[in-house]
Amino acid sequence: MKLRALCGPPLCLLLCLLFQSGLSQTVVKSLPGLPGDLPFYLETGYIGVGELDDVQLFYYFVESERSPRDDPLVLWLTGGPGCSALSGLIYEIGPFTFNYEKSTRFRPSLKLNDYSWTKVANIIFLDQPVGTGFSYANNWESYNINDNISVAESYEFLRKWLKLHPQFLSNPLYIAGDSYSGVTVPRVALEVDKGNEAGLEPKMNLEGYVLGNPLTNYDSDLNSRVPFAHLKGLIPNELYESAKTDCNGKYINVNESNADCVDDLKAVNLCVENIDTANILEPNCVTQSPKSTVSDRWDPTLINRDPSPLLLPTERASRVWCRNYNYLYIYIWASAKVVRDALHIREGTVEKWVRCNKTLSYTSNFLVVIDIHKELIKRGFRVLIYSGDHDMVIPYVGTQAWIDTLNLTISEDWHAWFVDGQVAGYATLYSSFPSLFTFVTVKGAGHTAPEYKPKECFALISRWFDYLYI
Amino acid sequence: MKLRALCGPPLCLLLCLLFQSGLSQTVVKSLPGLPGDLPFYLETGYIGVGELDDVQLFYYFVESERSPRDDPLVLWLTGGPGCSALSGLIYEIGPFTFNYEKSTRFRPSLKLNDYSWTKVANIIFLDQPVGTGFSYANNWESYNINDNISVAESYEFLRKWLKLHPQFLSNPLYIAGDSYSGVTVPRVALEVDKGNEAGLEPKMNLEGYVLGNPLTNYDSDLNSRVPFAHLKGLIPNELYESAKTDCNGKYINVNESNADCVDDLKAVNLCVENIDTANILEPNCVTQSPKSTVSDRWDPTLINRDPSPLLLPTERASRVWCRNYNYLYIYIWASAKVVRDALHIREGTVEKWVRCNKTLSYTSNFLVVIDIHKELIKRGFRVLIYSGDHDMVIPYVGTQAWIDTLNLTISEDWHAWFVDGQVAGYATLYSSFPSLFTFVTVKGAGHTAPEYKPKECFALISRWFDYLYI
Repeated sequence: MKLRALCGPPLCLLLCLLFQSGLSQTVVKSLPGLPGDLPFYLETGYIGVGELDDVQLFYYFVESERSPRDDPLVLWLTGGPGCSALSGLIYEIGPFTFNYEKSTRFRPSLKLNDYSWTKVANIIFLDQPVGTGFSYANNWESYNINDNISVAESYEFLRKWLKLHPQFLSNPLYIAGDSYSGVTVPRVALEVDKGNEAGLEPKMNLEGYVLGNPLTNYDSDLNSRVPFAHLKGLIPNELYESAKTDCNGKYINVNESNADCVDDLKAVNLCVENIDTANILEPNCVTQSPKSTVSDRWDPTLINRDPSPLLLPTERASRVWCRNYNYLYIYIWASAKVVRDALHIREGTVEKWVRCNKTLSYTSNFLVVIDIHKELIKRGFRVLIYSGDHDMVIPYVGTQAWIDTLNLTISEDWHAWFVDGQVAGYATLYSSFPSLFTFVTVKGAGHTAPEYKPKECFALISRWFDYLYI
Repeated sequence: MKLRALCGPPLCLLLCLLFQSGLSQTVVKSLPGLPGDLPFYLETGYIGVGELDDVQLFYYFVESERSPRDDPLVLWLTGGPGCSALSGLIYEIGPFTFNYEKSTRFRPSLKLNDYSWTKVANIIFLDQPVGTGFSYANNWESYNINDNISVAESYEFLRKWLKLHPQFLSNPLYIAGDSYSGVTVPRVALEVDKGNEAGLEPKMNLEGYVLGNPLTNYDSDLNSRVPFAHLKGLIPNELYESAKTDCNGKYINVNESNADCVDDLKAVNLCVENIDTANILEPNCVTQSPKSTVSDRWDPTLINRDPSPLLLPTERASRVWCRNYNYLYIYIWASAKVVRDALHIREGTVEKWVRCNKTLSYTSNFLVVIDIHKELIKRGFRVLIYSGDHDMVIPYVGTQAWIDTLNLTISEDWHAWFVDGQVAGYATLYSSFPSLFTFVTVKGAGHTAPEYKPKECFALISRWFDYLYI
């Protein structure tokens, strides 16, 4: 208010320029690696948030290929924290992905993704929090962040984005994400609803939220890795029984003086230390790195771990295939000047794009989200939680455990759900029909389920968005 | 003895002719579908067993591609009962398999199997019991068989085969097989040792036996499917707890009057009825067949079920891929006259070759094999048991349970074993080093483990035969 009173033309010009730098939306007509014009609508841009718009959040917006006016609008937050939205877009749910058969290390090639969620939804892929992907800040202080700041920035981004795209204000709105975004997505959803209550503009048409293998309750999620390892035959019965007794069911932050429990966990770690935790059935890529210790193994910063591209082998054929090698292409692609120009990345803002930024100055200050879920369910929002059932990063049994504590009424108990006549996993519907809360396992999938089971996850999300039976 | 006294030239001639029909060994130099001469030694033939050699057992013998004189000699029995040795040879551990990329329904094409166990062992693939594969009987009575007769026939076969191939008498001998052969393999091994004790000729150099996902204890093996389904996330926690209580831990041959238990098992069945039991992560092929009932589901005759080839789709592309479609080629190949001629199949003996003969008149009269294992271990034989850990036909947890009852001393507890630096599963070694008894899980493999994880299973068997560490 004070500012407005002071605002004469010269200051206004300055502020307008600043504002300008926080507003840059461009339609991308074509992308290096994909022949011809894009057969979908892609817009990229920056939106400034925080004081003086010092934080510039970069996004990719893809319109639904079905009916942009009617289909849901989704704000997608990839996990980490610090994993780029581009990773979620290319490897999980976006309209294009790498064509491995045609890619070389000098020229990555793209192809369309038949199972893109943008076939049925308008999706904003947001590089958040600041320091992730192509998002950056104009001052160093803004890089010191935590869950609260991350949530506030995402919410502010969404409001500003919708002001710029008022044509999507009436679409059903969903907040979505996976892995670490389990911590932020429900809180952004709650911010949206509270903002609506407070009469903040624009009013948003929030219908619910979607989470994949979400971190929800730090202690119980990580704790569930031991029972999960037992369920999946990675540790023997005797060891599991012994650990249960010796550690009293608590396998993280263990008191060092409890020697029996420490010994048990060392034995557990020996059994699982060479397993690919993101999908226990896939080859593990990081055999060349030094052995992790027990405490490292349970460190949540290892979620979405990603080898430095410099560690990647020079001769692919001489090594066992592993999924992480695929991530090489995204580094090459996202670093190329032609790609950055096509995406309209501001020069000099982000020198080195990384898939998952593990050097973020990020404080996790909010690692139990149960009460937020309860509040949102009480407010009547729809929730979909899906879990790849071969993920040991956030095991489905831990997710199931916190869902049980919500004390929801089961409207349809655990049952197989199908894609092409095949069991794609199991679903439990809670509260009345159409289910308010849906928990789904994706059989055979890993931590980022759509990366492992694209067809099944696309069928799941399409049905769920359309209020169809799962 | 009486016969010998009576034996003048005319009777001798008659007996010799009969004997002749039971002895026909041919070296196969080439096979339709595989270009050029075979790069391995293949011999096929019949050996007559039983009274007057009325039962003609057909076999495929492949010499080791390493050192036939030094490498082990293995008698391989595929399960069922009634599944052809050719199925084990082509789909599991033999030197050639189908080349799907080059096969058509009119001309199946073969290729060499890089992970054939014949790279390190001489293997006799035996069509047993009579009525299996190309084995046949000269009278109807001989087709009425049971476990005892099957074991006796296999043992008699082996003695006669070794008499014909005395150059293999000094090789280490192993009896091996999977699935239903869990019932027969240990008993054949015991017959061999008892025969040696009794001074029967030829004396055999038995070193041990090998079993894959073996049926061992009908009740406990099949019973373990319910806890397995729980472990693998196919049934929910609450249902499992309820079934445990209501059924008192017994899920087969349930008293119909126990309505709660029957209800629980119906719910279990609903959850798993569309799962491919041979590998719970693979598509299930028999969706077109009528729904099975609870009792059907637990029927052991469904082991190695195989859809009639007539049920197979005419257009492969229009259907979800499923492993059973692969089995189509073996029907076409084994039915072709050129193939039968190459294999020297006697004309008019087996009109229709089937992969698994489910119309056998077979009585399972020996379905607890624990005591045989105990006896053989006491006699100092080496044992390798491997289990694909995603098999719900004979789940590894049931196998582990009966192994526990053997009360063996653990020499090296459950630990990861590796192929190419990757965890291929978990191994437990029992008794002193070199382990007498080894139990190994094969991570991600199904019922017939080498069919799903050929490289890993080949590494396993090579190391085990060579007394190397697993």
